[in-house]
Amino acid sequence: MISIALDTMGGDYAPAEIVKGGVLGGRETGVHLIFVGMPSLLQAELAQHDLSGLDYEIVDAPDVIQMDESPAKAVRRKRNASIVVAAQLVKDGVADAAVTMGHSGAALVAGRWVLGMLPGMDRPALPAPYLGLQPEVTIIDVGGNTDVRPRHLLQFAFMGAAYAEAVVGITNPRIGLLSIGSEPGKGSMLLKETFPLLAESSLNFVGNIEGDDIPAGKADVIVHDGLLGNVVLKLSEGVVEALLHDITSRLEEHLPAESDAIQAVIADVLAANHYSRYGAMPLLGLNGLLLIGHGKSKAPAVVSGLKMAQRAVAGNVLPRLKDAWQRVQESNH
Amino acid sequence: MISIALDTMGGDYAPAEIVKGGVLGGRETGVHLIFVGMPSLLQAELAQHDLSGLDYEIVDAPDVIQMDESPAKAVRRKRNASIVVAAQLVKDGVADAAVTMGHSGAALVAGRWVLGMLPGMDRPALPAPYLGLQPEVTIIDVGGNTDVRPRHLLQFAFMGAAYAEAVVGITNPRIGLLSIGSEPGKGSMLLKETFPLLAESSLNFVGNIEGDDIPAGKADVIVHDGLLGNVVLKLSEGVVEALLHDITSRLEEHLPAESDAIQAVIADVLAANHYSRYGAMPLLGLNGLLLIGHGKSKAPAVVSGLKMAQRAVAGNVLPRLKDAWQRVQESNH
Repeated sequence: MISIALDTMGGDYAPAEIVKGGVLGGRETGVHLIFVGMPSLLQAELAQHDLSGLDYEIVDAPDVIQMDESPAKAVRRKRNASIVVAAQLVKDGVADAAVTMGHSGAALVAGRWVLGMLPGMDRPALPAPYLGLQPEVTIIDVGGNTDVRPRHLLQFAFMGAAYAEAVVGITNPRIGLLSIGSEPGKGSMLLKETFPLLAESSLNFVGNIEGDDIPAGKADVIVHDGLLGNVVLKLSEGVVEALLHDITSRLEEHLPAESDAIQAVIADVLAANHYSRYGAMPLLGLNGLLLIGHGKSKAPAVVSGLKMAQRAVAGNVLPRLKDAWQRVQESNH
Repeated sequence: MISIALDTMGGDYAPAEIVKGGVLGGRETGVHLIFVGMPSLLQAELAQHDLSGLDYEIVDAPDVIQMDESPAKAVRRKRNASIVVAAQLVKDGVADAAVTMGHSGAALVAGRWVLGMLPGMDRPALPAPYLGLQPEVTIIDVGGNTDVRPRHLLQFAFMGAAYAEAVVGITNPRIGLLSIGSEPGKGSMLLKETFPLLAESSLNFVGNIEGDDIPAGKADVIVHDGLLGNVVLKLSEGVVEALLHDITSRLEEHLPAESDAIQAVIADVLAANHYSRYGAMPLLGLNGLLLIGHGKSKAPAVVSGLKMAQRAVAGNVLPRLKDAWQRVQESNH
């Protein structure tokens, strides 16, 4: 039985939408769900729902981290904040994974502080599926790791490979390094120094990848720093939105009678490219499974986040990453 | 009378498509066109066209730089290569601008070597219009300047501002710094150090810009290094292509009878986002106007490139940049 801790206090629509998504997602996934939050608020929210058939429990987390607090200080001071309690449940083996839609900085600090890093891993990194255009392509890092060194990108590559194998289900995924040209000598100093590390690793490294290779699906895992990752994800979402807007008005001008059908198709494409489809992603490199989602998540994103957590646990992403990374560590000694 | 030197030997489809585009573009723009290239090849190509009404001359450039040569060495050894001769015509005041579709590395070296940099400018940078989605938004650098320092990004911002004013026609353009979040403290060390330089400059700096702000048009000039620029441009093109493919098949499935109309609309959108619309862009920071275009350029892109050269000359992009940059230099002393 998979057990998942849900931080019901984190996110712009907490606790109402988080609890609602928890109830729906708990029933849909069949996992044992641990609602973590302030008991009074939680009870009031749970009372709004039909809980029959839901396998759940409540764990108290009376502290709250405010948006304007320093995450580093707040997490250390507020041991009973919901994100800290949820991570502790994973640490203690009570939960197999924790899911939060709260402040990602606080989640990062709580993850590092409570769960710790895998031996030899320097920084946690966040993977993401590349929109609906290439949902089986994983980009990493989108967690804001800027100013990285070559060894960090190597670590991100191992994390991304473990995720692609365990969650996406791709055997021996093709790893690409996002750069400015396909030749090994192309790119920044960072990329030129990273290239041989990847080439000499046990990974299925397919070389440098360019921007247009991402939507074309030329690699299963695309490795880059968090600045590039943030730009890639937000830019892609922005292009999709702007282009759909442009196309809709052009189509409606040419085919005014088909307006309803056109809008239905465009709505489908937009939905396929929306972050709520995956809901939350595992912060990799930690010695435990902590998934973080979008602050704007509503109930459907919470349901997707719980499904993702279930897949990450069932697919053994953490043991896979541990094993692969341990072999790297051993071969370096 | 504006005079433009056209390198007819550079590009994948040289000389045939370059000469063809030159003849069409020369007539369309009314500029004085200087065909630069190997006389025998050029004469043979020109003989294919009706040259009536075309204001042109031919300048010999008997040397050829091969694709596998080191640009730095080849440019210095082959003073009669077409790109070197074209740049020299600008240097000598015979041409107001030079246009090449040849090897961009060779053009860069020829530009720096023959024309030199503006005083206090460290590296040439290449701007680009942001596709058809936001054709009035300029992104800079897309010329491969990786591993830049804050002062380089400041220089790129002045270049982009001069281009936006002179060529796009925007007074006091809004300058944005591409980063990971809108707050001043967000981004890499490079970006954090660049932010105050831009904020304290005479530019109309609107702060950090995120990926989705580019297609949304939240700034007129977006500043970033050449790695980000390359990824932004290629990724955007790739997303447009992948999305149009996806939408076309979905629409045709729902509206099979409207297939022709749908394909016509999609073809329009694709054309609006194709690089041949602008053809070539001025390499800024040089003490002279040298425009470089896509190696895959055919005649229509050459026509667009000549129009762009004409606009850059007529809009005084170089004097504007010189003036603005000189004031920066003076205020620092």
